[in-house]
Amino acid sequence: MTGAPGAGLFPGPGNRAAFMEMLRELVGDYYDWHGSCVDAAGPPADVGDSGPGIGEVRSLIRELSGRLARESTPWPSPLYLAHMTPDTPIAVSLAYLCAMLYNPNNVTSEASPVTTRLEHEVGDDLCRLVGYHPDRGWAHLSSGGHAANYEAIWIARNLRSLPAAVADDPRTRDLVAGIPPARLVNLPVDGVLDLVDALTGRGVPARVGRLSGETRRRGTQGAGKLLLAANAHYAWDKCADLLGFDPGDVEVVGLDRDHRIDLPALRRRVCDLLERGRPIVAVVATLGSTGEGSVDDLRGVVRLRDWCERRYGASFYLHVDAAFGGYCRAVCLDGDGAMLPYEDVAAASSSARVKPEVYEAFRALPLADSVTVDPHKGGHVPYPAGGLVLRDRRAAAVIAGRSAYFAQEWDGRPAFGTHTLEGARPGAAAAAVWAAHRTIGLHAGGYGRLLGGCIATARRLHRRFTEADPPGARSQGLRLVSSYDPDLNILNLSVAQPGGRTGGDPVGRLLERLRAEVAAAPMTSLWVSGNTLARPEGAGGTERVLRLCVMKHLDPVVVDHVCRTLRLAAGDHPSAVADRNARV
Amino acid sequence: MTGAPGAGLFPGPGNRAAFMEMLRELVGDYYDWHGSCVDAAGPPADVGDSGPGIGEVRSLIRELSGRLARESTPWPSPLYLAHMTPDTPIAVSLAYLCAMLYNPNNVTSEASPVTTRLEHEVGDDLCRLVGYHPDRGWAHLSSGGHAANYEAIWIARNLRSLPAAVADDPRTRDLVAGIPPARLVNLPVDGVLDLVDALTGRGVPARVGRLSGETRRRGTQGAGKLLLAANAHYAWDKCADLLGFDPGDVEVVGLDRDHRIDLPALRRRVCDLLERGRPIVAVVATLGSTGEGSVDDLRGVVRLRDWCERRYGASFYLHVDAAFGGYCRAVCLDGDGAMLPYEDVAAASSSARVKPEVYEAFRALPLADSVTVDPHKGGHVPYPAGGLVLRDRRAAAVIAGRSAYFAQEWDGRPAFGTHTLEGARPGAAAAAVWAAHRTIGLHAGGYGRLLGGCIATARRLHRRFTEADPPGARSQGLRLVSSYDPDLNILNLSVAQPGGRTGGDPVGRLLERLRAEVAAAPMTSLWVSGNTLARPEGAGGTERVLRLCVMKHLDPVVVDHVCRTLRLAAGDHPSAVADRNARV
Repeated sequence: MTGAPGAGLFPGPGNRAAFMEMLRELVGDYYDWHGSCVDAAGPPADVGDSGPGIGEVRSLIRELSGRLARESTPWPSPLYLAHMTPDTPIAVSLAYLCAMLYNPNNVTSEASPVTTRLEHEVGDDLCRLVGYHPDRGWAHLSSGGHAANYEAIWIARNLRSLPAAVADDPRTRDLVAGIPPARLVNLPVDGVLDLVDALTGRGVPARVGRLSGETRRRGTQGAGKLLLAANAHYAWDKCADLLGFDPGDVEVVGLDRDHRIDLPALRRRVCDLLERGRPIVAVVATLGSTGEGSVDDLRGVVRLRDWCERRYGASFYLHVDAAFGGYCRAVCLDGDGAMLPYEDVAAASSSARVKPEVYEAFRALPLADSVTVDPHKGGHVPYPAGGLVLRDRRAAAVIAGRSAYFAQEWDGRPAFGTHTLEGARPGAAAAAVWAAHRTIGLHAGGYGRLLGGCIATARRLHRRFTEADPPGARSQGLRLVSSYDPDLNILNLSVAQPGGRTGGDPVGRLLERLRAEVAAAPMTSLWVSGNTLARPEGAGGTERVLRLCVMKHLDPVVVDHVCRTLRLAAGDHPSAVADRNARV
Repeated sequence: MTGAPGAGLFPGPGNRAAFMEMLRELVGDYYDWHGSCVDAAGPPADVGDSGPGIGEVRSLIRELSGRLARESTPWPSPLYLAHMTPDTPIAVSLAYLCAMLYNPNNVTSEASPVTTRLEHEVGDDLCRLVGYHPDRGWAHLSSGGHAANYEAIWIARNLRSLPAAVADDPRTRDLVAGIPPARLVNLPVDGVLDLVDALTGRGVPARVGRLSGETRRRGTQGAGKLLLAANAHYAWDKCADLLGFDPGDVEVVGLDRDHRIDLPALRRRVCDLLERGRPIVAVVATLGSTGEGSVDDLRGVVRLRDWCERRYGASFYLHVDAAFGGYCRAVCLDGDGAMLPYEDVAAASSSARVKPEVYEAFRALPLADSVTVDPHKGGHVPYPAGGLVLRDRRAAAVIAGRSAYFAQEWDGRPAFGTHTLEGARPGAAAAAVWAAHRTIGLHAGGYGRLLGGCIATARRLHRRFTEADPPGARSQGLRLVSSYDPDLNILNLSVAQPGGRTGGDPVGRLLERLRAEVAAAPMTSLWVSGNTLARPEGAGGTERVLRLCVMKHLDPVVVDHVCRTLRLAAGDHPSAVADRNARV
């Protein structure tokens, strides 16, 4: 009855009966529980006779199930390389379903005794995944990467304005006596966190946020600068506006030729701001950009921060948006969450799935102040499951609300309801993440294997699109070229026109052809999407490309098929069209 | 097979087998679909042999299910009157489970062809529920009331700063020529929306948000004022800080004796600000405060706004936080979504479940600019399902992101990904809300019956706690008094000490006793919570009380039982203790 290892991962014929059996058990538990709740207290509530009959419910659910099965995008297909929807392991689906029936709300453990505890457990997991100490850090789930990023910058913004606020207030200014204004305005994060402690020690914790707000506005210099790279997610625009940044306070740093943040450019901006005593709210680096899958040189950013602290006694808050790439760090982790030596990581696969510089970025991740990582992307958990991870849980104090009735904590961890951007949050998501972590494992042999396979596939596809034209390719066809070896599991293909022609919309034409195939046969066609890439510094502008988001490890036969399909669509000559028609 | 009407509403012995059968069907559809996705494309992805076996999954799910069934708070119990967790109808649970398996992401219909469409349908439902025209308004789901409220004020803030930005820019200032500065700074919302149109007409839609941001900062007067009443939810603190308001820009208006916003005080503040030409970002009214269930006099607030427009040519954005109370409007709606005459509403129940002034507030709701309404509260949908409803969809343009690849719309409705605070959002939540609306119905005979029953129960409990002491009550016991007839389904009980003594913590002592009973017998004990109420204007300060949040219609026998249990716990004399022990 236990079945082969791996048989309990994704849905398949080998676990169909078992899935149903487990479902029958857990629904039975739920009905028993519900019955106990209702029966023990006397007559049932009067729900009237106006509710639906069972037949009505059955028709509705059949309609929904039928539409979903007919019309859903086939993301579990190996040929689905468009949106970053992961396949969901059976344990994860079952855990979500199971917990959802009890409708726990993780705003407070009073409304979710089991799942709040599970969220603290997965919070510890996420700390370990990014390399933080669970006893000092803190993590929680969110509705997605947007909310996690908003919260991170909210924290950074409030931390940044705190020292000046403390200096302004006669009751607290002794805490920062002797610190020159230019240092104070960009006081290193640990120094600000010590101020939070000192304020709390004086019994003025509630004033922390207030002080920040007042100073933020009073200053003539605005909230401070938010430094992003051009590979950052489109949501950062929303974030900056939501949090009240001036458009002019968002500085976009260019990219190097690997689509990573241009470090010399970042260094120039940071030094200029620190020297002029202008506040920097945060530097945002990206670990797995959603456009390119690129991984910023975190080691370099951390070195820059350390150098600034030595040189200026001032530095910046470093937030890493690893919403997409965070789980890939498991590729480099042993069973205890420690980094494996690079030799072991490289040796684990013949395809050298992780580049040395990506490994270095993973190694530097624990030195960031906060990290966004989404279980509903690399974690293979259904929506909604984003996550924010803090290096030092004290930081959460600067956004804490005042609601007294949610003040309980758990083993010294901040309470969710008071210390998160959101309020009501589904405990079912915590149960799903918990099931994913427990059954897959946050190490090289677990998530590392799953996601390493995706990275290896993307890099294999890259090599295929750097090869010479296959025999028979005609010069009038479009040519697909991968111009850079991906850091993670996203591949972008440039579309070159014959004879070096420019203009027109070759990517659009190609997508149109592929979409026509998808419309005719969604289950057996190739799904890719279009993408607009920022060109590296120097080249300037943007380029329209095809994007392949590789959320599964593909068999070499499937890789061949993907390459052939793309080249056929791009070929655009009579024999290719005939060939394509024959295949469909 | 169809069963009796009502048999398909909440879980019970009458639908247990049918639930399982429907589940078997929908899981079968999912496995078939998943198989088609995977099989059609060649060899399956290599997931390795490192995944869990089926036995491992079974143990994990059994552990989770067991813990949930043993430790969950028994919110379906008629004696559970603590958190506002609704019971979930079987159609709603099944719809969530069904859609979740396909893991749709409503950020874009490309990742959720079925559920994005369902979300537009339930968006139209929500427009009709609050009284907006679905062809002009727009609604979407969110992670909860927090996110919906943040988004509403984000919109209001950007709208508020737009006219001044337009006036500042030489390319657009002709659009506001002749409007005096004091009017411009508080231009009525419809006038601002016409500016949005005019900008779009000139091909500068992308500038809208940018202009707003620049002016917001440049002005010496800050972002403007946010006017709230003291009954507003604790999350408004977070909201104001997140969006970068000065602490001094949040003005809290006091309450009248019914725990509703003090209208004369609001009028004084508004007139003062308009006369001084200080921007008002928004006035927030509450329809169903989470502490008191009170309903602000929306009719009065709307009248104030109209009067301001006539007198000053200036007014304010009106947002209504109906996260808790929004669905109660169904009590007053006919099958077409039109307001029933009050006589019909009052006649629908012998207990006159809705007061005339609450009816008037419901009638005025369509005149607000935006409304937060949470399906995961009154809508009986599991978490996460909040919702934001806009009177005029043009307002969404001022927070729109720039992401080109999410620009598609649906019949003229804004696209979700670009026009919402959040990004990835679970399509399963839309399916659940859709199932709830379709099977329950947004009218007096559907939700009106369910929620009207809750209101009637709360008001019946109120009457019981205004009666004279029951025979046998001793003067040394605590006395429970309901000092106001609730507007909706929340009741607060003051705890008076014998002989008019003050001090101590009688509420805490009472809660401790009740919690001891709950700990001993969770399924058969009474669950209530503590609450801190702002006292009405004049009285000042706050009062600690017991809060009963009535999420189900209780049978009169159960109402008796609740009253007796509370009085026994409060009695605190030997015979009462003996009686209590005997019962437990």
